[in-house]
Amino acid sequence: MNQIYASIITIGDELLIGQVIDTNSAWIAQQLNKTGIAVKHRVAVGDNKEDIVLALDEEQKLADIILITGGLGPTADDITKPLLCEYFGGTLVLHQPTLDFIIDLFEKKFKRPMSERNHKQAEVPDTCTVLMNERGTAPGMLFKKDNKIFVAMPGVPHEMKWIMEAHVLPYISKHYQTGFVEHKTLLTAGIGESFLADKIKDIEDSIPSHIKLAYLPNFGMVRLRLTAYGTDKQVLLNELNQYFNQLKDRVAEFLVADEDIALEAVVGNLLKESNQTVSTAESCTGGLIGHLISSIPGASAYFKGSIVSYSNEVKTNLLDVPKDTLYSFGAVSEQTVSQMAASVREKLNTDYAVAVSGIMGPEGGTVDKPVGTVWIAVADDKKVKTIQFNLPFDRQRNVQQTVINALNFLRKLIVENKCG
Amino acid sequence: MNQIYASIITIGDELLIGQVIDTNSAWIAQQLNKTGIAVKHRVAVGDNKEDIVLALDEEQKLADIILITGGLGPTADDITKPLLCEYFGGTLVLHQPTLDFIIDLFEKKFKRPMSERNHKQAEVPDTCTVLMNERGTAPGMLFKKDNKIFVAMPGVPHEMKWIMEAHVLPYISKHYQTGFVEHKTLLTAGIGESFLADKIKDIEDSIPSHIKLAYLPNFGMVRLRLTAYGTDKQVLLNELNQYFNQLKDRVAEFLVADEDIALEAVVGNLLKESNQTVSTAESCTGGLIGHLISSIPGASAYFKGSIVSYSNEVKTNLLDVPKDTLYSFGAVSEQTVSQMAASVREKLNTDYAVAVSGIMGPEGGTVDKPVGTVWIAVADDKKVKTIQFNLPFDRQRNVQQTVINALNFLRKLIVENKCG
Repeated sequence: MNQIYASIITIGDELLIGQVIDTNSAWIAQQLNKTGIAVKHRVAVGDNKEDIVLALDEEQKLADIILITGGLGPTADDITKPLLCEYFGGTLVLHQPTLDFIIDLFEKKFKRPMSERNHKQAEVPDTCTVLMNERGTAPGMLFKKDNKIFVAMPGVPHEMKWIMEAHVLPYISKHYQTGFVEHKTLLTAGIGESFLADKIKDIEDSIPSHIKLAYLPNFGMVRLRLTAYGTDKQVLLNELNQYFNQLKDRVAEFLVADEDIALEAVVGNLLKESNQTVSTAESCTGGLIGHLISSIPGASAYFKGSIVSYSNEVKTNLLDVPKDTLYSFGAVSEQTVSQMAASVREKLNTDYAVAVSGIMGPEGGTVDKPVGTVWIAVADDKKVKTIQFNLPFDRQRNVQQTVINALNFLRKLIVENKCG
Repeated sequence: MNQIYASIITIGDELLIGQVIDTNSAWIAQQLNKTGIAVKHRVAVGDNKEDIVLALDEEQKLADIILITGGLGPTADDITKPLLCEYFGGTLVLHQPTLDFIIDLFEKKFKRPMSERNHKQAEVPDTCTVLMNERGTAPGMLFKKDNKIFVAMPGVPHEMKWIMEAHVLPYISKHYQTGFVEHKTLLTAGIGESFLADKIKDIEDSIPSHIKLAYLPNFGMVRLRLTAYGTDKQVLLNELNQYFNQLKDRVAEFLVADEDIALEAVVGNLLKESNQTVSTAESCTGGLIGHLISSIPGASAYFKGSIVSYSNEVKTNLLDVPKDTLYSFGAVSEQTVSQMAASVREKLNTDYAVAVSGIMGPEGGTVDKPVGTVWIAVADDKKVKTIQFNLPFDRQRNVQQTVINALNFLRKLIVENKCG
């Protein structure tokens, strides 16, 4: 059985001037991998005929399935549809079901008249199979050529996702005999990539070539990912689990999770298991810790809320941080975050609380407390624990690193309490 | 003067299985555009010798400058450096300044011993110019071949950015005679892409070919971006401004900003100008509105904080939403968000407040209030205004759209008050 390869072409000047970040490719790659299709190549080109044609020419040399996103909106900067029509032969014809759908969409949902441009979106090359788009006005199109398939989809993420799930992935499962690709991931914290590599060197050296190990460092955490390729699912899984368990045992003291999961989901699962709740008191993160905790479906079972005390006035009035404490030790101090954590836990009536205060930059640093100084406190019903960091990054990254550090500090306290 | 083109190659299996989203390319593209370099092509390949070599071969056909990120970490999944050494000839030699820097980094900052792997990171091909990396252990490398330059940088975003700013961009400014590329952007809200296009059709048709107009829709807002290319900066700017001002006048009633700026920055600027303050009361967004407002440097001048009332208990205890109101109308109701906005404004002592409550999914919907039902309230010292939305998306997108809608509703109230 041969490995089936895919290429992803994203079209749009906005990708080449950096106005938008391409999140579509990562999502598409994830979905394809699950079905056993390996992504060989990803390429981004501008709204430019010559470059799009070159990409179509080149990618079919590398892959069996070419997925194209972008360039199908209603406005004049979109040149992709006529180009595809020419590239695969044929002429543009009206696709009545799409037109009916668009008319209905404007009447019932948008509640405004549709324009001539929207009408034109129902035209498709007569050489394609139309993939109905029930999330927008631009239909997907599937073309076949020389035993390869080409699928063009709009670039709007939720429309593209809908077309992939409703049409493209089922089509691939039906028409391609794919092998199995399995990923397993360990999430670690508190150990650098190099030291992790030294620690597991003998295991890594023993891993056969059809299983790949990757180190994925991010914000002080490292993901270890094993990827295995094969034809017999059960054999593959047994083999993968064998190496996965060896790695898991070896990195036990740094292990955060034995799956590819966000840290806020790890914290959420721990709280759900023990029927406990959490609240946050945030200064420099402005509410991001609470937002991340609440972003997990079902978070209402364990997340009650936050007090974001960006100003000192709010720290005093809502979190009972004494003015004396702010005056003597400052807003970014062990004393202040301890009080913030204790107060929010009490006022929101939760089992745990986490509090942060720091100087994220670019302004606000002093000699004693330079930009990057962060205090974090976690509280339960018996104690408050604190930790301090000096982060070396820019404002945005300092905030993100603070959130990770705070969630991990909270996670450790919960685990500690569970293990007695 | 010829246009100088760049290509960006990103290396890493993690990009092809979708485990990480490539943010580096967008940032690099932005920086290059500012210097007048156009990005022609972006390509992502796996940690695979053959594919990397193919990308190097192909991209130099398309571009003058080839920027490569990724594949330079300390662990064994990194094959890029030996490959580059072979591709450009030469042998790996120790780069003493890099080694000294790494030793110092481990001694003073990481405070732990360095490993043999980190030592190896100081080895570079003797055919490259080393670009010192003061943010990490992997140095950048610049190669020249057939009048093209190739720059390899680590994939860690803050390290890559540092090398770009310290070395690559200054090198480009010095060695390339670039033309000018100027972008100007209008941010609109409340009008669809198609209608916007109809509204400005005559202006669009009159724009000369060296100025491009792009429509960039995102979360119910559309950015209109003009990009102009030319050799005489002043002529170019005059011309660009002429079309920009025409467009600006035409879309005035939908205009949010006449620059490429985030909505939270628009709100922040309005508040700063009038010396006013804001607070948020958030349920379904979990703190994201406050976080975004606070993410703008200098936000402490106008943002005091938030009360995140994810649970009804917090809505009652901290935001004085009567239990009767919750019982009779529900947490997602005009009555509840009105009270949330009024209370947080009063308790945090701010000029404005914004409050949101909604059902984001996938669970929690009812017949009367399906998933996507959202109420938003904004308050000033005289009144509370409300608005309701029915969003059709998944949890994550519903949250993001709610945040945009809330910030825009707040923006309108502030503008309304300013204009009397």
